Amino acid sequence: MLAKIHVTYKKGVLDTQGQAVHHALTALGYDEVKQVKVGKYMEVHIEGVSEEEAKVRVREMCEKLLANTVIESYRYTLSATE
Amino acid sequence: MLAKIHVTYKKGVLDTQGQAVHHALTALGYDEVKQVKVGKYMEVHIEGVSEEEAKVRVREMCEKLLANTVIESYRYTLSATE
Repeated sequence: MLAKIHVTYKKGVLDTQGQAVHHALTALGYDEVKQVKVGKYMEVHIEGVSEEEAKVRVREMCEKLLANTVIESYRYTLSATE
Repeated sequence: MLAKIHVTYKKGVLDTQGQAVHHALTALGYDEVKQVKVGKYMEVHIEGVSEEEAKVRVREMCEKLLANTVIESYRYTLSATE
């Protein structure tokens, strides 16, 4: 099974990396860019557990390790391994 | 318009961050995890250009700045701003 996980900053949290990328894009002439947010994307391959179990355990992994839930939010999808 | 961009390592490139996360998950008892890949996720808000133009320019942004195309691949989708 494959879990695709997105971790992004919560609203109101300063995204300095996003600001830096925005600044760099503007310097390159991309004036149409109005905002940039930078987050993490993770693919976790899982074997030997049911989909129901995987749902619960990936949620746990996010809470415990993959996201800092004070400042970040996460979302994930589960699918058959590609 | 909103461009959602995923940047991931190409096959064969050593993903040390992914290995570190995998190791940490195993240490936490998640033995069902067989592989972890870590990439970047970016949301770029764009205004004042057509969708056709945006497609071309986001591709350029990826090539020039957002991805290191020697070791990373990218993919993106464009949608109306949420």
